[in-house]
Amino acid sequence: MSAHISVEELENRILSGDLRSLARAATLVESQSDTGREIVASMFSRTGRAMMIGITGPPGAGKSTIVDQLAKLLRSEGKTVGIIAVDPSSPFSRGAILGDRIRMLDHHTDPGVFIRSMASRGKLGGLAQTTLDMALLLDAAGRDVVLIETVGVGQDEVEIACLADVTVLLLMPGSGDDVQALKAGIMEIADVFVINKADFPGADRLEQEIRAMQSLADDAGKANSAPVRRVIATDGHGVPELLAVIRTLFEGRDRRAAGIETWTFRLREMLRENLLTTIPEEMIEQHAKRVAGKLEDPYTAVAALKATLK
Amino acid sequence: MSAHISVEELENRILSGDLRSLARAATLVESQSDTGREIVASMFSRTGRAMMIGITGPPGAGKSTIVDQLAKLLRSEGKTVGIIAVDPSSPFSRGAILGDRIRMLDHHTDPGVFIRSMASRGKLGGLAQTTLDMALLLDAAGRDVVLIETVGVGQDEVEIACLADVTVLLLMPGSGDDVQALKAGIMEIADVFVINKADFPGADRLEQEIRAMQSLADDAGKANSAPVRRVIATDGHGVPELLAVIRTLFEGRDRRAAGIETWTFRLREMLRENLLTTIPEEMIEQHAKRVAGKLEDPYTAVAALKATLK
Repeated sequence: MSAHISVEELENRILSGDLRSLARAATLVESQSDTGREIVASMFSRTGRAMMIGITGPPGAGKSTIVDQLAKLLRSEGKTVGIIAVDPSSPFSRGAILGDRIRMLDHHTDPGVFIRSMASRGKLGGLAQTTLDMALLLDAAGRDVVLIETVGVGQDEVEIACLADVTVLLLMPGSGDDVQALKAGIMEIADVFVINKADFPGADRLEQEIRAMQSLADDAGKANSAPVRRVIATDGHGVPELLAVIRTLFEGRDRRAAGIETWTFRLREMLRENLLTTIPEEMIEQHAKRVAGKLEDPYTAVAALKATLK
Repeated sequence: MSAHISVEELENRILSGDLRSLARAATLVESQSDTGREIVASMFSRTGRAMMIGITGPPGAGKSTIVDQLAKLLRSEGKTVGIIAVDPSSPFSRGAILGDRIRMLDHHTDPGVFIRSMASRGKLGGLAQTTLDMALLLDAAGRDVVLIETVGVGQDEVEIACLADVTVLLLMPGSGDDVQALKAGIMEIADVFVINKADFPGADRLEQEIRAMQSLADDAGKANSAPVRRVIATDGHGVPELLAVIRTLFEGRDRRAAGIETWTFRLREMLRENLLTTIPEEMIEQHAKRVAGKLEDPYTAVAALKATLK
């Protein structure tokens, strides 16, 4: 801690509602620092209260708008909200981060809405971990609802969406490719399908496509009866009904069973990243040289590297 | 091996050009069987001859069409071609697999083109590994060029694109979101940017966007001077020029250095999946129960699980 304040003291200030301290802890978590991890570990026993809602979908589906509408509605009920906008962007996409910064101005006078944009730093696998830590921090800090917004296109996004208690998949009619683009497991983890821009032509067709996929999944023995809802995010039409559906799903879950299942998944992901660090980088490079020179096949190399752990 | 034939015999038949044996080995690799791995390990010393070209881009950009055009052109030069169409689809998307099956009919009378569609089976991380094994098999089997086609939207696709010697990023004008959707590192790994449907309005604007991103990357100290080319995949316009650019890039690489770098990356990925299997699943579940019950924080759980390896 740079400015002479202990993790314990920071934690106390966060719990007393000091937003500056929360922002500071969030920065420590985001930078994947040891102190950030220490804060999450120390506050962990306070987690498990917040309702975590994942909002995922292709670019342009209106995720930010629906997140803003949900935040507004929750605030009108007096609930505190944390928003994590995950942007797995390369250094190329400064524009997106700038966009989020601009967006934060909307809520910046309301201490009941805490927003963090998270961009990818290095390895994407780390992003799911950092997002989880951020969500735990906001949960422990007492936010009633945590909204996690992410582009639903890759494996990493699937993992991030899995962090949520209820995952909303947002689609937009007319883009044609949408349903096809959202392949990698994201359809399975959707708890609610939401058709945004429901007043656009093509909304009926999109709903049919979703239903068709659901019955295909049924055929494959993977029942998927996630409800389909329509909204117009720009004017908030259908948003209260959506929140009601989310709450019903949230309350209907077996929290204990879901918790164990979720943590089994999360611990496995954490281990996947963590175990690799136990093998010295130079040893991996040595074997890479042998494999590149065809002196060794990759499976033999992996077995040899694995054996060094014993 | 089910039908009384050894790995060695299968290997010999593949090397003698027997396509049925190659198809059989491909199926063993695709199913991630031990025999599949054994075949790849055994044939590994024969790899390193093929030019591996990755074709990636958003859905609808025309990847299949450009792959077909490249295959046709290469065949007209007498080169043998292997095509791996990676489809990280859920069980939902049978349609896509069916589409590839239909597409294969185009080339099915030509033994010089061997096509495999690979869908995700379970964990996506495994897909990158299986794709690598398939590429190595086709390389060892003597295919002059291996084309690896994948949707460039997630981390897994980035990994798959990294398998290739030269990676082509295909974009289409007018979809607006395209450049933004392709965030997660895929812009950095593109060796050539290709604008398909170059006769569509918006091609100039798309090229400007690509150039703008390249100069942003330059500012960030990540020089990106990948050439930008235009094609009309449907009629083959610009495809010979594209192939020429790919060959120039392929020949310009430092193969030895690239090989070591690539294998360092690949071994790390293989280890990531592999190390996890050394920790018993029930032990992970035990800790997940403790974490779900707030008896332990996740970082303590990971440290405890890691300690069991010693």
